[in-house]
Amino acid sequence: MKIKAGIIGGTGYTGVELLRLLSQHPAVNLEVITSRSEAGNKVSSLFPNLTGFTDIEFTAPDIDLFKSLDVVFSATPNGIAMQYARDLVASGVRLIDLAADFRFKDVKLWSKWYDMEHACPELLETSVYGLCEANRDNIKDAQIVGNPGCYPTAVQLALLPLIDNDLIEADSIIADCKSGVSGAGRGASIGTLQAESAENFKAYAISGHRHMPEIEHNIREISGTTPDMVFMPHLTPMIRGIHATIYVKLKNTEADLQQIFVDRYKNEFFVDVLDNGLAPETKWVKGSNKCKLTVQKLKDGKQAVIFAVIDNLVKGASGQAVQNMNIMFGLKEETGLAQIALMP
Amino acid sequence: MKIKAGIIGGTGYTGVELLRLLSQHPAVNLEVITSRSEAGNKVSSLFPNLTGFTDIEFTAPDIDLFKSLDVVFSATPNGIAMQYARDLVASGVRLIDLAADFRFKDVKLWSKWYDMEHACPELLETSVYGLCEANRDNIKDAQIVGNPGCYPTAVQLALLPLIDNDLIEADSIIADCKSGVSGAGRGASIGTLQAESAENFKAYAISGHRHMPEIEHNIREISGTTPDMVFMPHLTPMIRGIHATIYVKLKNTEADLQQIFVDRYKNEFFVDVLDNGLAPETKWVKGSNKCKLTVQKLKDGKQAVIFAVIDNLVKGASGQAVQNMNIMFGLKEETGLAQIALMP
Amino acid sequence: MKIKAGIIGGTGYTGVELLRLLSQHPAVNLEVITSRSEAGNKVSSLFPNLTGFTDIEFTAPDIDLFKSLDVVFSATPNGIAMQYARDLVASGVRLIDLAADFRFKDVKLWSKWYDMEHACPELLETSVYGLCEANRDNIKDAQIVGNPGCYPTAVQLALLPLIDNDLIEADSIIADCKSGVSGAGRGASIGTLQAESAENFKAYAISGHRHMPEIEHNIREISGTTPDMVFMPHLTPMIRGIHATIYVKLKNTEADLQQIFVDRYKNEFFVDVLDNGLAPETKWVKGSNKCKLTVQKLKDGKQAVIFAVIDNLVKGASGQAVQNMNIMFGLKEETGLAQIALMP
Amino acid sequence: MKIKAGIIGGTGYTGVELLRLLSQHPAVNLEVITSRSEAGNKVSSLFPNLTGFTDIEFTAPDIDLFKSLDVVFSATPNGIAMQYARDLVASGVRLIDLAADFRFKDVKLWSKWYDMEHACPELLETSVYGLCEANRDNIKDAQIVGNPGCYPTAVQLALLPLIDNDLIEADSIIADCKSGVSGAGRGASIGTLQAESAENFKAYAISGHRHMPEIEHNIREISGTTPDMVFMPHLTPMIRGIHATIYVKLKNTEADLQQIFVDRYKNEFFVDVLDNGLAPETKWVKGSNKCKLTVQKLKDGKQAVIFAVIDNLVKGASGQAVQNMNIMFGLKEETGLAQIALMP
Repeated sequence: MKIKAGIIGGTGYTGVELLRLLSQHPAVNLEVITSRSEAGNKVSSLFPNLTGFTDIEFTAPDIDLFKSLDVVFSATPNGIAMQYARDLVASGVRLIDLAADFRFKDVKLWSKWYDMEHACPELLETSVYGLCEANRDNIKDAQIVGNPGCYPTAVQLALLPLIDNDLIEADSIIADCKSGVSGAGRGASIGTLQAESAENFKAYAISGHRHMPEIEHNIREISGTTPDMVFMPHLTPMIRGIHATIYVKLKNTEADLQQIFVDRYKNEFFVDVLDNGLAPETKWVKGSNKCKLTVQKLKDGKQAVIFAVIDNLVKGASGQAVQNMNIMFGLKEETGLAQIALMP
Repeated sequence: MKIKAGIIGGTGYTGVELLRLLSQHPAVNLEVITSRSEAGNKVSSLFPNLTGFTDIEFTAPDIDLFKSLDVVFSATPNGIAMQYARDLVASGVRLIDLAADFRFKDVKLWSKWYDMEHACPELLETSVYGLCEANRDNIKDAQIVGNPGCYPTAVQLALLPLIDNDLIEADSIIADCKSGVSGAGRGASIGTLQAESAENFKAYAISGHRHMPEIEHNIREISGTTPDMVFMPHLTPMIRGIHATIYVKLKNTEADLQQIFVDRYKNEFFVDVLDNGLAPETKWVKGSNKCKLTVQKLKDGKQAVIFAVIDNLVKGASGQAVQNMNIMFGLKEETGLAQIALMP
Repeated sequence: MKIKAGIIGGTGYTGVELLRLLSQHPAVNLEVITSRSEAGNKVSSLFPNLTGFTDIEFTAPDIDLFKSLDVVFSATPNGIAMQYARDLVASGVRLIDLAADFRFKDVKLWSKWYDMEHACPELLETSVYGLCEANRDNIKDAQIVGNPGCYPTAVQLALLPLIDNDLIEADSIIADCKSGVSGAGRGASIGTLQAESAENFKAYAISGHRHMPEIEHNIREISGTTPDMVFMPHLTPMIRGIHATIYVKLKNTEADLQQIFVDRYKNEFFVDVLDNGLAPETKWVKGSNKCKLTVQKLKDGKQAVIFAVIDNLVKGASGQAVQNMNIMFGLKEETGLAQIALMP
Repeated sequence: MKIKAGIIGGTGYTGVELLRLLSQHPAVNLEVITSRSEAGNKVSSLFPNLTGFTDIEFTAPDIDLFKSLDVVFSATPNGIAMQYARDLVASGVRLIDLAADFRFKDVKLWSKWYDMEHACPELLETSVYGLCEANRDNIKDAQIVGNPGCYPTAVQLALLPLIDNDLIEADSIIADCKSGVSGAGRGASIGTLQAESAENFKAYAISGHRHMPEIEHNIREISGTTPDMVFMPHLTPMIRGIHATIYVKLKNTEADLQQIFVDRYKNEFFVDVLDNGLAPETKWVKGSNKCKLTVQKLKDGKQAVIFAVIDNLVKGASGQAVQNMNIMFGLKEETGLAQIALMP
C-alpha cells in the first residue's frame, strides 16, 4: 500500500521539485497539495513540465485535508509549518518541514534569528534535524523532521568527518559558500531578475546569515563541539547549485584526510568522495540528490580545504525531504531518488 | 555653453543608460533627474557604476524644475510624458519621450493599443518620430520627439532600403524578433527572474504586440505604403540585445540588394551593412549605439532575409534618444555616443 | 531478458545523454561503449554525473564487440555509422544512428549536403527514418533507423498536422529556429566558448543548413508533397533546447487548427498540444523527451504560426533514439523515458 | 604630439580590450598590431565591435615595426614579451607586458612556477611591477612594466591598507577568489564551452595557482612582509569580473578599518571604498577600470573580511596597462579610461 502524502504550499521552487520527485516515486500517492492563490488549478498549468505525469489540482489550505494522510511536506516560508504541527501530530500524521521551523532545539536562538515567536515550542524537543547521513537513527521514528537548509547540508557533510575525528582547531573554520539564484525562491524581486543577477557575482547577508547558527547549533547537537565559524554566502549567476569551499586549521598534520572521508561515506549512496586533487563541479549534481566532496591538504597539512557541491533544490531541499520520508517509512533511501544529474 | 538637460523618472534601465551617456556627454550638463521613490538619494547609490562620474541626486518630480532647461528626456512608463508635454512646450523646453506617448500621429490607433486617453492629442501633429536615420530633417526642429521602440528601430532600419525601392511584395513581411530580458524593464516580476528566464527561450505576446502597429504606422508615415506584416517577439536568455530576422518576398529577383543597403547607409555612422554572407551578432553592438545589418537573398532572389542587431537599451532606447538630442541641438550625431561595444 | 545494447562513440553530448537514459532503462543492459581516446577509462570519470549509476568502461572500437548485441546506437559524427552498418546487419544487430548517415533515401542528395560517398547505399532502401510519431509502423521492423536531426524533429512535428490536412499554401513555409549551444557538440571551438556565445544571439549557416534538405526530403517521403521552405537556424545563449517558430500561409481560413493538432497527437505521450494562446517555453521540456506545440492563427486565418519546443539532446537526439529502440523491441514507448523536465 | 603605440599579439581578450581602449584614447596613436595568424586582416574583421573606430590591420610580428614607437603592449601568452624586451629597451621603446614575464624580481621563483628559462633575467632588476596604486612612483620612469595578474590586482588592493598598518596576523590570510570565464582566454577548449561552464561553479588549480606566488612576492617587495596565504581560484559562470573574498585575523580588534581604507584610497580615482555593510557586485565595474572594496569586521573585530571586485579584462589587465602607460607618459591617470560600467 502506498504512502499517502500531501504538500502544504506547492507554488515555489521546493514545491515544484517535490512534485517532480513525488509524482514518480513508486511508493507514494500524492493526494493533496495546497495553495491559496492557485486553488482549483492543475499543478501542470503552473508547472507545465508536469503535464502527463500528474493530474492533481491545488486546493485551498485546510487542516482536515491532511488528517488522513501518512506524511505531509511543508514547502512554505518560515513560520507556516509550525501552525499545522500540533494538529498533524495529534492526527498521527508525520511532518517534514522544508523551512526552518523545526531546525533548532533552542527556541530562543530560533526566535532571535527568525524574529518570531514559535507556535509550538514543546514539539521542538521531539522533532529531529533531518540531515540524513548524520541523523538517520533519530529520523526513523521522528514525528516531525526539520529538513536542513541548503547551505547547512553542504557545509555539515563537508565538516562532519573532521569533527568526528576531532581534527579541527577551534575557531578556525571559514565557510565561503556560493549559491545559484533559485535559492532566493520564486518570488518577484528586482535583485534576482536575470538583468540584475546574471553576469554578476556578489556576497550578501555579510553581517550574518541564518544558516550560520543552524550549522553551529546542529553540529553542536550532533558532535558536542561548538564550531565558532565564519560563514559567508555569495550569489553566483546560475540557476541551481551550491558550492561550499571550507577552510580549516588542523590539529594533526599527519591525519589521512582522504581515508577519513572515504571511510565516513563509503556506505552512503548520496555522498561521493572524489579522488585527491579532483575538484567537484556543481553541474555534476544538477537535478540529482548527490553531494560530492573533495578534501585537500594545504600548507603541509597544517590547513585543509573541503569542497562540497549539491543541488540546492534536491539534496539541499526537496530531495533530502524525500530521503527523510524514505527513512521514516522504512524504504530504501534511494527509492524514487536515483535521478542522474543533467549534463550538459 | 552646455545644453541644460533633465530626466523624468530615472530609476529604470533606460534611465541608468541615459545617465551613463549624459554624464559623459561633452556638450550636456545634466541638471535634474526625478524619482518619487528615490528623492534625496544620489543616483550613484542606486546605480553604483556612476560613482565618481556624477554627484547628481534624485529629486521629487515637479514641473517647475524643468522649465529652465533646454531639453527633458522622459524615461518613464507610457502615459507619463504626455502629462508634462504642454507645460514643457509652453516653456520652450524640448521633450524626448522614450516611451510611446508620441510615437503615433493617429490618436485612435494609439488609444486602442495603449488603452488610455491621450492627454494632449493636439501635440501629436507636430511631434516627430525619432528614427534618426529616416527622419533626421524633421527631428532638427521638433519640439517633441517620440523616441522609437526597440523592436521598431531594428525592424524599420532593416526594411527601409527595400521599401524605399518598392521591392517588397504586399503582405509578405514576417519579422521574427528576439530580445534580451532587459527589454522587460527593471520591475519585480516572476517571469524575468533569472531562475525563470535564463536557460529558456519563448515567444510572447503571440496574439499581438504594440510594436507591430508602431512599425506599420511609421513606415506608412515615412514611405506612404502600408506594410501588412507579421511581427513575433521572443525572449532570449541574455541581458542586452535585439536580433531581428525579417523575411520578405521580392518583386524583382534581379535587384542588387547588397548595393541598395550599402548605398542607403553609407553615410550613417551608426548603421553598418555587413559583407554578404556574414550574419550579425548581438554582442558586436552591446553597449554601443550601432545597428548592424545583413541582407541575404533566398530561393534565387524570390525571397530575402534581413538580419538586424541593436542594443535594445542604446540604439533601441537611450542612445537613440541622445542621438535625437544631438540632431535637435545641431551637434555632430556621434557626440558622446562613440562607445565601442564590449567584447567579450 | 534484457536487451543487450552498445554505443559507438560515447564521449559527446548525445553519448552522455544516452548513458543517462540507458543506464536507468529497466529493459536494457548496456554492455559496450567505445571510444578510442577514452579506452580503459570509466565513463564516470569523464561524466561524473554517472558515478554510482554505471560502472561501464570505454573500450577501443572493434566490430566484434558488437556482434552479440541486440542493438547498437551510434553517437558519432556523420560518416561513421555507415562503416559499421553492413557488419551489424549481417550479424543481425539492429542499428540506430544518431548522426545523418541513414536519414535520406536519396543518396545523391545526401552526398551533396554531407560531401562524402555513402559507404552502403544499398542499405538506405530498407533503413527507416526514425521520427517516431510519423513513422512508427516502419520503425517496428527496421534493421537500421536513421534518428532524425534536432531541428527536423521539431519542425516536422509542427508541420505534419497541417500537411496531413493539405492546409499549407505551396512555397509559404518559413521555419525560424533557435537552438541552445549544446547542439554544437562537445568539441573545442572558439565560437561556442561561454565568453563568445553567452550574452549573444546570432543566425548561422545563413546560406543553407543540412537540416533543411532533411526536412524537405522526409516530409516528401511521409506525405508525398514537397515543402519548398525557408529554414533559418539561430544560436541562442542557453545550453539545451530548440524553439521553432514556423510561419505558413493557409489554403483554408476556416480550418479548426487547434482541433486538428489535438486530434493528431491525442494518443502521443511525448507530444503535448497546448491551449490556444499559450506559447511553449523550452524550459518546460529541459531533460525530458517531450515536444510541446502551440498553433495560432494570424491575419484572420490566412496565415498561421506554429511554435514547437524540444530538448535537442533528448527528443532531438538520444531520447528519440531510445524511443525508437522501444518501438523496435516491442516495449511501451515511454519505458525508461518518463523523466520530468527540470524546472527551474 | 601623440604617443606612438603598438600591440604584440592582439587576437585574445586582452588584445581586443586594449584595442577598445587605445582606439579612443585621446593621446595615443595606435600604429602597429601584430598577429601571425591574422596578418593582413583588419582588426575589425576579427572584432566587429571596432568597425568605424579603427582601420588598423594586423601585421606579421617583426621587431623592426616597433623600433620607432614610444610604447609597446604585449598581449601574448607568457614567455613572448621577454623575447622582444632587449631589442625594445635598446631602441628606447618602453614595454608594458600584460603576461607574467616581468612580474617577479626573483627569477628562480618565476622559472619554478612558469616552467621556463627567462630570456632576459638582467632586465628584471629594473623592470617595475605595475600595480598603479601601490607602485606609481617607480612606474613613472620604468622602461619595462610587468602588468599585474587579474587576481593579484584585486587581492593586493584589498590587502594593502591592512598590511601598511601591520594589522594582519601572520599566516591567517585566506583569499577565496572567483573569476568569470573570459579569464581563461580566447582559446578553443572544452572546459570553457558554454555548455560546460555555464550553469556551473567549480574551484580549479586547487593544488596551487601561479597568482599565489605573484601576490606573495610583490607584497613582500612592496611591504617587506611575507604574507603566507591560502589562495583558491574558482570559475563562476559569467563572462567578465573577479570577486575576491579575503579573510584575515587581526592583531588589533580596535582598529578603525573603514577609516583606514577610506584614507588609503581617498585620492584614487579607480578605487572606491564602499560604505560599511554594503557588499560590492561585479556588475558595478563591468567594462570599467574601477576596483570597489568593502571591509567588514567579523567576530568582534578579531577577524575581518575584505571584498574586492574588478573587471578582469580592464583593471585586471588592459585597463591597468593603459593606466600604467598614462603614468609612464605623464598623463592624468584617467585619460581614456573613464568608461562607465555597463548596467544592466
